[in-house]
Amino acid sequence: MPRTAFFVSGRTGITAEMLGHSLISQFEEVNFRRITLPYIDSIDKAREAIEQIREQARTDGVRPVIFSTLIDEELRQCFYIEEALTVDIFATFIKPLEEELGVMSSHTAGKVHGIANFEEYKNRIDAVNYSMSHDDGGVSRNLADADVILVGVSRAGKTPTCLYLALQYGIKAANYPLTPEDFSDHKLPRVLANHRNKLFGLTIQPERLSQIRAERKPGSHYASIDICRAEVSEAETLMKQAQIPYLNTTSLSIEELASSILHHSGLKRRVF
Amino acid sequence: MPRTAFFVSGRTGITAEMLGHSLISQFEEVNFRRITLPYIDSIDKAREAIEQIREQARTDGVRPVIFSTLIDEELRQCFYIEEALTVDIFATFIKPLEEELGVMSSHTAGKVHGIANFEEYKNRIDAVNYSMSHDDGGVSRNLADADVILVGVSRAGKTPTCLYLALQYGIKAANYPLTPEDFSDHKLPRVLANHRNKLFGLTIQPERLSQIRAERKPGSHYASIDICRAEVSEAETLMKQAQIPYLNTTSLSIEELASSILHHSGLKRRVF
Repeated sequence: MPRTAFFVSGRTGITAEMLGHSLISQFEEVNFRRITLPYIDSIDKAREAIEQIREQARTDGVRPVIFSTLIDEELRQCFYIEEALTVDIFATFIKPLEEELGVMSSHTAGKVHGIANFEEYKNRIDAVNYSMSHDDGGVSRNLADADVILVGVSRAGKTPTCLYLALQYGIKAANYPLTPEDFSDHKLPRVLANHRNKLFGLTIQPERLSQIRAERKPGSHYASIDICRAEVSEAETLMKQAQIPYLNTTSLSIEELASSILHHSGLKRRVF
Repeated sequence: MPRTAFFVSGRTGITAEMLGHSLISQFEEVNFRRITLPYIDSIDKAREAIEQIREQARTDGVRPVIFSTLIDEELRQCFYIEEALTVDIFATFIKPLEEELGVMSSHTAGKVHGIANFEEYKNRIDAVNYSMSHDDGGVSRNLADADVILVGVSRAGKTPTCLYLALQYGIKAANYPLTPEDFSDHKLPRVLANHRNKLFGLTIQPERLSQIRAERKPGSHYASIDICRAEVSEAETLMKQAQIPYLNTTSLSIEELASSILHHSGLKRRVF
């Protein structure tokens, strides 16, 4: 019997989704349907949302859970209804914070993701542009500007991890593929030699790699399990020799990879 | 006098950061220093973290605020210390959820961002690959596969918004620049004509556009305020004529743009 989780917000709903997902993932036995109701910024919209929640409660036959980051007092109160459990995220924590900090909160929505200042926006865009133009070994002459350079075999997960580092943290992340030529030389590509301290490796289980490559080039030599095994083994040997720290991407999400790399490299995020 | 906010987590710290940032952004008068302490998964690491927090409390002369998403009972308790205010995010909400759902939570960290299944991972990577190869009008023959196609003048914010849509939501987002040639024809580029219902526009304040372009090409014709004014005006006219919905990116963050586009287009996210 599925339950419905609603993520209710005065703005994008991202924070409500994030926390709500974290919480419901603690209840593996429960099969949740997830619905985001963003931009609830008027009584009319709140009423419409509540109608939808009540309708869902009738359909499901069990009470939905509402994860709300609403701040406006009047709107917040609307979502305390008998037909649902309301997890009122902001209200729960705002009061103890006001007491601790000795100031009143501004009680206004939408402070979080606004463009705080041009500098921060610029850091983010610069990092995205940098990471896109330094994907897969492109424009290698500018590696000196990289904050971090990810290395690994083709399809190990370098590109999405770089983009995440750029978008979420404002980190300039280049990536450089390790190819069969590098393995026959038994050493790192020359262009990386001057940036040894920025290198971070990604490795992957050969079976998973083969599966991912086969999605792109079904039946190819490139996707065969033998080739994948050989490449991964060579790449790991090379990274060990060169003392490059590395992570296995098989069971880690992009978020976890990016956060680990940031943590391990001692880099500071430039975007909040 | 700056206060310190600590984001404490058994894994990446992303959820703690997200909610903590949302909350502290409600207190504009308070100048927060932000420190993430991820991967607190043992008593030893907890003790080390607490030492750091106590040290910071002494330096600051005011109590830090700890935003914790720790789940393990023993580790959680460690962070209730006199020298700080602890905002215990999971513990606060887990109990009411257990009662509502009639099951115990698994009380295990790290469920959130794990690779749930290969399908979801593939959606995400496919969307990232798609969005990267369809940036700035690239490979236009495949626009039929796009979930959404962002249009707008050069440097209006299309690229980072597309990448965010791909990474966070698994949406295949292409983008296509509106250029002076399109304006002289007074119509949409031909390649877009068949995809009218997927188009979404981004516009921008000419002054901001000029500032962004000048970062890339200082003193250029391309960055001059007159050219920026003319291009933005022409692009907006074109979008109105073609009845393309559009947003102004000047005061919206990438998160807000992406979430608005998703909401407005009625697209469903493929990644949670």
